[in-house]
Amino acid sequence: MPGTPPSRFVYLGPEGTFTEAALRTLPAAERGVRTPARSVPEALEAVRAGEADAALVPLENSVGGAIPVTLDELATGSPLVITREVVLPVEFVLAARSLTPLAQIRTVAAHPQASAQCRNWLRAHLPDAVVVDVLSNAAAAISAAAGEYDAALCAPIGVSRNKLTVLADKVADHSDAVTRFALLTRPGPVGEPTGDDVTSLAVSIRHDQVGALLAVLTELLVRGINLSRIESRPTGEQLGTYFFFLDCTGHVAEARMGEALQGLRRICAEVRFLGSYPRHRLVNEPVPSVPGMSDTDFTDSAAWLARLRAGDLG
Amino acid sequence: MPGTPPSRFVYLGPEGTFTEAALRTLPAAERGVRTPARSVPEALEAVRAGEADAALVPLENSVGGAIPVTLDELATGSPLVITREVVLPVEFVLAARSLTPLAQIRTVAAHPQASAQCRNWLRAHLPDAVVVDVLSNAAAAISAAAGEYDAALCAPIGVSRNKLTVLADKVADHSDAVTRFALLTRPGPVGEPTGDDVTSLAVSIRHDQVGALLAVLTELLVRGINLSRIESRPTGEQLGTYFFFLDCTGHVAEARMGEALQGLRRICAEVRFLGSYPRHRLVNEPVPSVPGMSDTDFTDSAAWLARLRAGDLG
Amino acid sequence: MPGTPPSRFVYLGPEGTFTEAALRTLPAAERGVRTPARSVPEALEAVRAGEADAALVPLENSVGGAIPVTLDELATGSPLVITREVVLPVEFVLAARSLTPLAQIRTVAAHPQASAQCRNWLRAHLPDAVVVDVLSNAAAAISAAAGEYDAALCAPIGVSRNKLTVLADKVADHSDAVTRFALLTRPGPVGEPTGDDVTSLAVSIRHDQVGALLAVLTELLVRGINLSRIESRPTGEQLGTYFFFLDCTGHVAEARMGEALQGLRRICAEVRFLGSYPRHRLVNEPVPSVPGMSDTDFTDSAAWLARLRAGDLG
Amino acid sequence: MPGTPPSRFVYLGPEGTFTEAALRTLPAAERGVRTPARSVPEALEAVRAGEADAALVPLENSVGGAIPVTLDELATGSPLVITREVVLPVEFVLAARSLTPLAQIRTVAAHPQASAQCRNWLRAHLPDAVVVDVLSNAAAAISAAAGEYDAALCAPIGVSRNKLTVLADKVADHSDAVTRFALLTRPGPVGEPTGDDVTSLAVSIRHDQVGALLAVLTELLVRGINLSRIESRPTGEQLGTYFFFLDCTGHVAEARMGEALQGLRRICAEVRFLGSYPRHRLVNEPVPSVPGMSDTDFTDSAAWLARLRAGDLG
Repeated sequence: MPGTPPSRFVYLGPEGTFTEAALRTLPAAERGVRTPARSVPEALEAVRAGEADAALVPLENSVGGAIPVTLDELATGSPLVITREVVLPVEFVLAARSLTPLAQIRTVAAHPQASAQCRNWLRAHLPDAVVVDVLSNAAAAISAAAGEYDAALCAPIGVSRNKLTVLADKVADHSDAVTRFALLTRPGPVGEPTGDDVTSLAVSIRHDQVGALLAVLTELLVRGINLSRIESRPTGEQLGTYFFFLDCTGHVAEARMGEALQGLRRICAEVRFLGSYPRHRLVNEPVPSVPGMSDTDFTDSAAWLARLRAGDLG
Repeated sequence: MPGTPPSRFVYLGPEGTFTEAALRTLPAAERGVRTPARSVPEALEAVRAGEADAALVPLENSVGGAIPVTLDELATGSPLVITREVVLPVEFVLAARSLTPLAQIRTVAAHPQASAQCRNWLRAHLPDAVVVDVLSNAAAAISAAAGEYDAALCAPIGVSRNKLTVLADKVADHSDAVTRFALLTRPGPVGEPTGDDVTSLAVSIRHDQVGALLAVLTELLVRGINLSRIESRPTGEQLGTYFFFLDCTGHVAEARMGEALQGLRRICAEVRFLGSYPRHRLVNEPVPSVPGMSDTDFTDSAAWLARLRAGDLG
Repeated sequence: MPGTPPSRFVYLGPEGTFTEAALRTLPAAERGVRTPARSVPEALEAVRAGEADAALVPLENSVGGAIPVTLDELATGSPLVITREVVLPVEFVLAARSLTPLAQIRTVAAHPQASAQCRNWLRAHLPDAVVVDVLSNAAAAISAAAGEYDAALCAPIGVSRNKLTVLADKVADHSDAVTRFALLTRPGPVGEPTGDDVTSLAVSIRHDQVGALLAVLTELLVRGINLSRIESRPTGEQLGTYFFFLDCTGHVAEARMGEALQGLRRICAEVRFLGSYPRHRLVNEPVPSVPGMSDTDFTDSAAWLARLRAGDLG
Repeated sequence: MPGTPPSRFVYLGPEGTFTEAALRTLPAAERGVRTPARSVPEALEAVRAGEADAALVPLENSVGGAIPVTLDELATGSPLVITREVVLPVEFVLAARSLTPLAQIRTVAAHPQASAQCRNWLRAHLPDAVVVDVLSNAAAAISAAAGEYDAALCAPIGVSRNKLTVLADKVADHSDAVTRFALLTRPGPVGEPTGDDVTSLAVSIRHDQVGALLAVLTELLVRGINLSRIESRPTGEQLGTYFFFLDCTGHVAEARMGEALQGLRRICAEVRFLGSYPRHRLVNEPVPSVPGMSDTDFTDSAAWLARLRAGDLG
């Protein structure tokens, strides 16, 4: 029911991953029911089927980049929209069943993206250890707790759940790495603009990349809309045809964004609206305004045009 | 009174010029009252003061270019709008009081723009004649009739009025030269689109010519609007600041033009609307259509946006 | 002979016009021979024929705009280049044979461009006088001296030559109006860059004004070249086909300008180089520099490319 | 040694993956030594260290998209260049130890990207089977051969190596899916243009995505260079700063590409050249040519500029 806050949440599991930690930063989710899903598609399917009200899934990581399965799910299938974003600092720890000198660690379980994000640290501190790929950060912690490997790269939440001991913290190479998550729901009336919003889109363009992509960017540029993110994903049809995922500054309820969306709609093969929602900032930054592009400017120019059409040039 | 066709016409005189000939191609003017004015400003002043309903003045010539005084009058002063354009082939004749061999012509009276348009012909056929500048084509004919000069370059209409004899016709260097005239009235409701219309604008831009002019052109480009004419005129303030006179394809009542006008309004120092009116074609040519830019396309994209905003992504 | 400064000058006459005054600001012209020509074409023909070394002709006026005949002569015929520009403040006076109260002035002789530039002054101070068009500022002074009219609008140089009395000075509506003149010679090696130069071009573009003009501007933009002037002139072929006269910031000997010129050459129907010469500034202004576009930047990027091509990516 | 074809090859292992199959399409690799590496970084490190002459690694998949680790390795670390690309059709089979009816298959081992590419087939034909993630296509085949799972999604090469039986072939949802591999070597002189080449670049841009990305695309556009691929990857510094991986039409030895590269070098924070090499086409397609952008056009415009600078405007 529109207006009712979601109370049944699903998230990319297993329990003990960063996604669960991100979900619990939302008060409604802390109060509501939280169910892990085995995959992003499964999480989204639960929302599409009405078994959950909202799904939290990872969208991109500042080091590892976009999460392809999330983008592909958003670009195809029945529509879902982003209603919130959560940006969470990534913090990896090296943990083991008991306090162990690093020199004695021979094997480390890690999700490939985790080991990629800690590559320099591993090279410097565990040059001789073998890093073994496992299928999730939670699986790494579990396998270390089970004694299959000497240690695990995992999230702090995995330490407490598995009663591990932290051997080293802040082991990620980029100390300010973050992961960005999206809370997805079935489509419904869009929230009010806050003045610092993001509008996410997936657009597919026809042949001739340079010209077509320039045309897309120009539709944004003439309305003073900037991008905080652009990602390309193959459409699956042939090499060289793409969806572009765009995170635009602004809200669908704003005049400039409305006009830009209509422009994209007219020139693109497909435009999929993925939601307008407040930008989550870890650090407050001033929001730049673009001269001539406020709702007032659009209202004024529309009134002027109406006068022109009526013959009133006074 | 809006809707009443004009009946009192003023035009750039004197009688016997191309402007009078152009005016008489309009049935309403042929039926109405036609008064010559001594100058373009005087003609426009008569309309502004309500002494005439409409003024016909030259706008540009395919050889001589824009008529600066007309552009300057349109860009400043109280607003007038173009409701019709008339394109008239330019036809110059060499005429004299009586039939005279060209070899005996020693002096030719001509308006400087007329002699400029016939330069090659004069060089080839009257290499030794002195061309004397006079102040209008009509004055050339009158002075030849008065015997002040051996011959005159003038319009056919000047021959009959002054009982001259044509020594040579079609003497203009460009056989397809035309002059374009504008019928100007006080502002009132704009006529209906015909599908092949022109919208004339004067825009003034701020500093940084390349960037600002690119921005103006981009506002047109993204709405699929083309230009049939662009003229720059200094604003009179300092070298390097300009009005641009733009003749755009389309009509102010069309969605794409409305959106483009609003865009220009937001980014330009000043936008002056100079009218939307049917294009006058001497030769029928197909009117190119731009995919995605019809009123239907705009209506469709607006409906799609309304659905997005209501949360209907079905 | 290249390197020899010009000594035989021709200028748009008659004597006593602003053009003569502008020419005499050049030391070489003050020392050399100065011959008036009856028209711009005649002046340029003298240079083309080798009868003069250089011609000074008006290029544009900050109020009246471009001088069409000069532009047309530059765009066609055998090539000439601008080697100097002279910017001269325009100063009109009202003069008569003897001191006369303004209230007694019934007729004023004036070149149409002069009366246009003094229109407001005339309306305020001589509301009842008849302004009679004559063919030059010098002719106005001469006719007033001859008693044909009560007064003349003319240049100060016309007062002294014709022993007139000034009734009012600084009568132009725009007190900072200027005229810009070009000194034209036969082509020869181009002078050295000064760091504050102008490069003048005439380019003709193919159909589709918006797209083609955008392409021209983009060639300049990507090399950080700005425009101090853009004028369109019909090519004389049909309405809607134009030459554009561009005054660009920079010098043909500079790398960025060289690359831009080559780019224009490849995309335009025709590019005519009209000279690179020092900008004449009445008031000193800082010359903006564009990051990344100096000759050093171009040399650096060329060296980098050479290394790439040699396989040296170090 | 430049000019010596590579003979020691390393590739992303294990044996039996698509990468090995791709490598064996190269005659030099078929004749040379082929060593599997455990990861893309390990493969590239072998080349950087001189232990191998060339490494074949996956670059992108038409369904799964870019291979992030390959892009990140190319954008950082000591430079390597692409000298060949190999495009290989992706062909998945469902295989088991012995011929088994599909209805009896309860568990399927699959690399997550493999199961993603066969999702629809699995849903239609094995709706009740559990798909278990494993770490490579080769590992899937091995685990099925070991009897750990009832069947495996794997490459044909995995069937023969593990003596499996094919239960179903062509099970990928996109029958024309391909993977594109890059052969990487240490930098050296670039090969000759073939007329149908790709130049790969990684560029990082400063703030303001829309404007900066438009500037990058414009540098390509004005030289008539198109893109067959654009991928964004975070730089790892903060959300919203990106490397763009561009596959451009053309070769570094061509004039238009040289000029575009220099332009990018001047405006981008960083430009990394990743190689110019022949495009591998599975299907022959005509290579579009761009008017005005051939080497001859560049040579002609350079010669014209040299004449201008010398004062020869004839």
